[in-house]
Amino acid sequence: MKVVTETLGYQTTPETDVLNITDDVASVVERSGLACGLVLVFVPGSTASVTTIEFESGAVRDLKRAIERLAPKGPAYEHDRRWGDMNGYAHVRAALLGPSVTVPISDGKLMLGTWQQIVLCDFDNRSRRRQVLVQAVGE
Amino acid sequence: MKVVTETLGYQTTPETDVLNITDDVASVVERSGLACGLVLVFVPGSTASVTTIEFESGAVRDLKRAIERLAPKGPAYEHDRRWGDMNGYAHVRAALLGPSVTVPISDGKLMLGTWQQIVLCDFDNRSRRRQVLVQAVGE
Amino acid sequence: MKVVTETLGYQTTPETDVLNITDDVASVVERSGLACGLVLVFVPGSTASVTTIEFESGAVRDLKRAIERLAPKGPAYEHDRRWGDMNGYAHVRAALLGPSVTVPISDGKLMLGTWQQIVLCDFDNRSRRRQVLVQAVGE
Repeated sequence: MKVVTETLGYQTTPETDVLNITDDVASVVERSGLACGLVLVFVPGSTASVTTIEFESGAVRDLKRAIERLAPKGPAYEHDRRWGDMNGYAHVRAALLGPSVTVPISDGKLMLGTWQQIVLCDFDNRSRRRQVLVQAVGE
Repeated sequence: MKVVTETLGYQTTPETDVLNITDDVASVVERSGLACGLVLVFVPGSTASVTTIEFESGAVRDLKRAIERLAPKGPAYEHDRRWGDMNGYAHVRAALLGPSVTVPISDGKLMLGTWQQIVLCDFDNRSRRRQVLVQAVGE
Repeated sequence: MKVVTETLGYQTTPETDVLNITDDVASVVERSGLACGLVLVFVPGSTASVTTIEFESGAVRDLKRAIERLAPKGPAYEHDRRWGDMNGYAHVRAALLGPSVTVPISDGKLMLGTWQQIVLCDFDNRSRRRQVLVQAVGE
């Protein structure tokens, strides 16, 4: 059993940028040499999330619209009144969706569905340089 | 330390079928012989999720209603306009709820609450044969 | 590789109490002596969740408001009609947000963002004594 951790870097655009990071995560798993185990994909920070979706532009736009209903952009956030960041909506979205996804590894491969991709969702209202931690645990 | 993986199979019905899979997950943990560690319960695919709830018909119906508000069934999805699948709502629901749950194992048992069950939620608009990966890591 | 499990205890107040439990989780990781791996923070029970957020009172109030929209408190829950608990909304909230968060450990430290804290959210309509399981896996 061993633990292998790598950090991936992404430049994001403002307001719910959804990036397909599946191939990068698969590469970490491949480099780890692990045959079976699990991989944790975690974004440090309080205005971004990681989840899975079929990564095609229609479904991604549908997701963005649902997230906008969940925590609409706007001036009615206490966080913004206190700190003036104007990204209160981004904090709420990130807390609701959560910072990570965990995927099983078998035969050295991510056990995702054919149409299921791992995505980084950046909700912040400005361009960010994001780090995503990919940690594989197994043997 | 070791990793034990099993695949469970379920036949689901269309439109937010919620199945209690707790006993099946507990059986995998028992067969694994692990005393302590964690178990990842993961559904491959982009129109299903795994979470926990008190599995009684009232709470399950309440959950379905909340999910319907979150991403209502309907014709207004870009995914449907592009691909004609008419399951755009299912993709959004799955991305919001996430594909997995992870539960600690102690003394060879799932550390769930008394009224807390592991459920597979299938949001798709047709009957599906689902596979759920159960992966226990521990010693 | 080893597994270290500890149970934390919290007294909560009714109706979406949000507690910052980051320091307690960090202490478990420190006591475990693990340099790298991951830590699963899991709440047994079907009316509470664990997630991450910037723990400042504005963002916490914003989160509570979004959760109230997601599953409003009220008499329209089937769970309440059947069991009279009047906490149907709490079951739905817990199922939507999920019972756990998993955080990577590196150099013996939680790899959280600077403004990202681990929070226990108790949605129940009465004061509860909650247990939170903290399980570190690594080496």
